[in-house]
Amino acid sequence: MESLPRRRVRRGAPVPVWRQIEIDLTFEIRTGFWGPGDRLPSEAELAAAYGVHRHTVRVALARLAEEGLVVSHQGKGVFVARRPVEYAVTRESKWSEFEQRLAANPDGKLLRSSVRTANAELAGLLALAPGAELLVVETLRRAGPGVSAYCYHVFDNARFAGIDAAFRRLHSYTPALAEFGHPEFFRAKTWIDCRLPRADEARALAVAADTPVMVMSYVDAGRDGTPILFGAAVVPNGRLRFRIDSP
Amino acid sequence: MESLPRRRVRRGAPVPVWRQIEIDLTFEIRTGFWGPGDRLPSEAELAAAYGVHRHTVRVALARLAEEGLVVSHQGKGVFVARRPVEYAVTRESKWSEFEQRLAANPDGKLLRSSVRTANAELAGLLALAPGAELLVVETLRRAGPGVSAYCYHVFDNARFAGIDAAFRRLHSYTPALAEFGHPEFFRAKTWIDCRLPRADEARALAVAADTPVMVMSYVDAGRDGTPILFGAAVVPNGRLRFRIDSP
Repeated sequence: MESLPRRRVRRGAPVPVWRQIEIDLTFEIRTGFWGPGDRLPSEAELAAAYGVHRHTVRVALARLAEEGLVVSHQGKGVFVARRPVEYAVTRESKWSEFEQRLAANPDGKLLRSSVRTANAELAGLLALAPGAELLVVETLRRAGPGVSAYCYHVFDNARFAGIDAAFRRLHSYTPALAEFGHPEFFRAKTWIDCRLPRADEARALAVAADTPVMVMSYVDAGRDGTPILFGAAVVPNGRLRFRIDSP
Repeated sequence: MESLPRRRVRRGAPVPVWRQIEIDLTFEIRTGFWGPGDRLPSEAELAAAYGVHRHTVRVALARLAEEGLVVSHQGKGVFVARRPVEYAVTRESKWSEFEQRLAANPDGKLLRSSVRTANAELAGLLALAPGAELLVVETLRRAGPGVSAYCYHVFDNARFAGIDAAFRRLHSYTPALAEFGHPEFFRAKTWIDCRLPRADEARALAVAADTPVMVMSYVDAGRDGTPILFGAAVVPNGRLRFRIDSP
């Protein structure tokens, strides 16, 4: 770790000073300038560099610890934690296999399901006619400590009515889809963006309402390319990052 | 568009009511439940559904319009805008080619460069020894209206000292890397996550300090797999989404 040059914070800005420091340190850690195992500068060094009271630094560090970015070792200092879990986006990507690598038992909970009419957008993604009936299923899935996803799955209701009940019984889509005649499915397309969580999502994922969540939207298809489902997995930011390997 | 069932907002929550509505509508649009060209329910319908004053709905809609998610047509209503630009992550992914598809001339501006010592993390990504000297170059790049990126590029300073000056002259890394003996480079690995912008980033990208930005981190390598650079592109959320096609 290099010695810390003077750093700027802006007083009276809409973003509180402690949060500016948190954002700044998050940048260093997330970008890899401070890597896993690196020791952060001391509270006193950080306070001097930012020209703030040590208490302000302490608040920022506490928030980083809550987010799992740093770990404090009493008397030794504050260290950058291990990198977040990586979810590799591939043709074989399946949340159920990802969670099985992280935890012994899949823990998928059905939250609610509803039927709605397909607009042009969703009809296009699922290769249906606009106006077709869609089954929208919301689930909460956990994959090991701290890694959960609030998931939306959208199905053609004509083919998949009842898959919500199958999910409730089986706690995972892989066996549910097998019961519906799709023992195999593959990731066709994936989009990644982020937004703030809805109140329901924030509550279920136990994240702050003003902290962004990552959203992975995708289409899963059969071997012949026919769309099976459109999904959107909402994951707390910072606990997981998406990885794409270019072969 | 279906008729709007009753929707809940929470008063006295840390997130203001207009923002809760904005988040809720953003969810509908981003997830595709309301697709491009769809007309949003009227202000009056939304106000009734959320049980709020029309002014509150108007504030939320104004924010959506600012973010480019909706377009208002006087007298006709508010419509979902076109989907954001998609950046496809592939072995051939290059920001310079992406921007050339969106705008005629690359507009890359050198912001600053600095030298720092490689920690284990960055040394590992660039296949260098820890302690090697790194050149960190910060640039601002524009690709068409509203799509810009604040970029960090990290190079082995022993091989690439002076590439910051080449970038300043050429406004793009592709020709700069060619001058340094790398006419070809390929995307080896990509990670996507999000965070809040640093003050510098927010200012350069002209985004609100409390609005998340997406971060694409990556390693570009030569044909033989030798790492050339580690990059991180910070892009305003909502203007661009990342797409991964599984072959």
